[in-house]
Amino acid sequence: MAGASLLLRNGRPMGKAVADVLVTDGVIAAIGPNLAAPPGVAVEDAGGALVLPGLVEAHTHLDKSLWGMGWRPNDAGPSLLDKIDNERKLKRELNIDPARQSARQAAVSSANGSTHIRSHVDVDTDHGLWGIEGVMATRDTWREVIDIELVAFPQSGLMRRPGTLALMDAALAAGAEIVGGIDPCGIDRDPKGQLDAVFALCQKHGKPLDIHLHEPGEMGAFSMDLIFERTRALGMKGQVVISHAFCLGTPDPALVNPLIDAIAELDIGIMTTASASRPVPAVKPLLARGIRVCSGSDGIRDTWGPYGTADMLERAMLIGMRNNFRRDEEVELAFHVCTQGGADIMRIADYGFAPGKAGDLVVVDGEAITHAVVAHPPRRLVVKRGRVVARNGACLKAAP
Amino acid sequence: MAGASLLLRNGRPMGKAVADVLVTDGVIAAIGPNLAAPPGVAVEDAGGALVLPGLVEAHTHLDKSLWGMGWRPNDAGPSLLDKIDNERKLKRELNIDPARQSARQAAVSSANGSTHIRSHVDVDTDHGLWGIEGVMATRDTWREVIDIELVAFPQSGLMRRPGTLALMDAALAAGAEIVGGIDPCGIDRDPKGQLDAVFALCQKHGKPLDIHLHEPGEMGAFSMDLIFERTRALGMKGQVVISHAFCLGTPDPALVNPLIDAIAELDIGIMTTASASRPVPAVKPLLARGIRVCSGSDGIRDTWGPYGTADMLERAMLIGMRNNFRRDEEVELAFHVCTQGGADIMRIADYGFAPGKAGDLVVVDGEAITHAVVAHPPRRLVVKRGRVVARNGACLKAAP
Repeated sequence: MAGASLLLRNGRPMGKAVADVLVTDGVIAAIGPNLAAPPGVAVEDAGGALVLPGLVEAHTHLDKSLWGMGWRPNDAGPSLLDKIDNERKLKRELNIDPARQSARQAAVSSANGSTHIRSHVDVDTDHGLWGIEGVMATRDTWREVIDIELVAFPQSGLMRRPGTLALMDAALAAGAEIVGGIDPCGIDRDPKGQLDAVFALCQKHGKPLDIHLHEPGEMGAFSMDLIFERTRALGMKGQVVISHAFCLGTPDPALVNPLIDAIAELDIGIMTTASASRPVPAVKPLLARGIRVCSGSDGIRDTWGPYGTADMLERAMLIGMRNNFRRDEEVELAFHVCTQGGADIMRIADYGFAPGKAGDLVVVDGEAITHAVVAHPPRRLVVKRGRVVARNGACLKAAP
Repeated sequence: MAGASLLLRNGRPMGKAVADVLVTDGVIAAIGPNLAAPPGVAVEDAGGALVLPGLVEAHTHLDKSLWGMGWRPNDAGPSLLDKIDNERKLKRELNIDPARQSARQAAVSSANGSTHIRSHVDVDTDHGLWGIEGVMATRDTWREVIDIELVAFPQSGLMRRPGTLALMDAALAAGAEIVGGIDPCGIDRDPKGQLDAVFALCQKHGKPLDIHLHEPGEMGAFSMDLIFERTRALGMKGQVVISHAFCLGTPDPALVNPLIDAIAELDIGIMTTASASRPVPAVKPLLARGIRVCSGSDGIRDTWGPYGTADMLERAMLIGMRNNFRRDEEVELAFHVCTQGGADIMRIADYGFAPGKAGDLVVVDGEAITHAVVAHPPRRLVVKRGRVVARNGACLKAAP
């Protein structure tokens, strides 16, 4: 995707002294005071606001938000399977069209400053590749606004619904970039079966893995151990992400510490939404071990629940609150998770706020990064590869 | 305080069908479709937005927000005493003037739809009644905008700093409405001493108690038991609130259930901010037992930490997330805690959204109460006793 050129004047890059940022053909060319505007280059004034790198939404479900479909009171049952079955049923009933809904969420996400999304996309025997095809259409038509990558995600289970594996295979052949998985014990009740299957997909397609693991405590630790075993045996170091990883929130260092050792050894990435109602991994010790940590909005206003604003600055606030981060240097860790941390997980080579990196920027009011995190006011400007894609909290491209 | 008259047209009271609300001399006179405007009565159009009762901020610290004082990176130490000592030192150093800061926070609170505030206000031997006098000044000058009541709060401890008890006594004599306390074991290290002293203040001044209890697990349960003992012995049923009550979040029903039995028996109110990083009381079981539950913002952007927006709709969202409320009927429990629940704790006799109750209203966009909670957009209109006090997210009275 070709980039544009832009001179962004009078911003405070990363909350530091006022400076200009020059983006040339989509790439940051210079950051410094009083840069000259090359002829014909568009100029924007940041008015003293913060200039930050594009936010990274590293875990969401673009295919199934109800955004803009009218308020529907949620009456799903309490268990995970209740919610999964309820959702599969409602998809056709309400016509939760993945192409339309992913475009709507992409617009909100861009308006809030995200420039990259990793989306898990349901693959199941009721709906086949409806989700994959819909989100791929959005990926293609919204490419100038936001980068989207797809995880083929067996939300309803892989082993318990025969036929799903062939659909996963087809989704990857069609271009889904990452293999997904979910609770090999809790949902599939066949951890060996599911994990052998998803790792085989990784091997066949030469693609990395990002697996949902909600399983808590000893069960989650068991599943993790099976994941470690396969990652090691197949030489997939650095190619596995474990999303949620609730078992790392178990208040028992004897259980958690060996898991963290293996995660560090195998360069496994961890995704946490910092759920307030479940045990969650503590962010600081993971980062201190050099482990890649990212975050995401997870489901946005869907059949699972009403929460979510697709705002990764608000997510950084929630991570900070969940981890009891109070000092600015701690809140900046939460901000890191929602920016560079996501890029580290998604292996975005040209990500970063430095010359030579992509011109993906967010301009937002705030006296400091922590201030922007806790207040997360509407974004003044969002820039994707040098092109202004959102202004004053609204995406410039119209969603369906 | 005299009230005003207002006809609010085209709102959806509590998310139901479109109706008008007539407030006469500060009191709700009628709720229904197509009400006639009495001569000379101001008319506002709600434009189909939700009309809700005023929000109740039942636990905050008006005297010490840093709002509007310029961003100051937080570098306080990790323990509770670190933060208490750091704050006492910074009060004079930064001139955190309680009169000015409480007015600023009152303005933000009103802009976000709160019509009542219970504020704990520091009383200590370094600063005497500086806080009490400052917040009382705001209470008086902001009376038309928002109702404020004061808890005389021994933030730095009562027994460990001799002289504090006499200051507490003076604060109550000066008109503070509620006796406060804090961690009789954890902070004062003399539970019998502190609890005997604060209950004696209640008896002497004929005032209720609202005590901070951060103590977790068995220690908190012990302090609670001492509170129950005194509440029962002194006939103070219905006159005690326990704020935070973290020990009720202990994952051990054998510890928690007997505490809940006593809380129900003694009609003790519980305040929870739904902290994401600490054990917290589960809201639903308390409400199911008929226990009064309220919430609050706690500290807003102060020396303790950067969080907080003084928005009780956002607080309802955080309560919902912390309690894993997903169904609309559950999220409405969180909304109840931030409205009627606060009024139940503060014993606000004329609170409620019904004829004969005070004309305290919030107008906010949303398709349903749950929608307003999760999105909490800027309030269109805030009405206090029939008078418009905030519009489009801004308080009409200027803060210092």
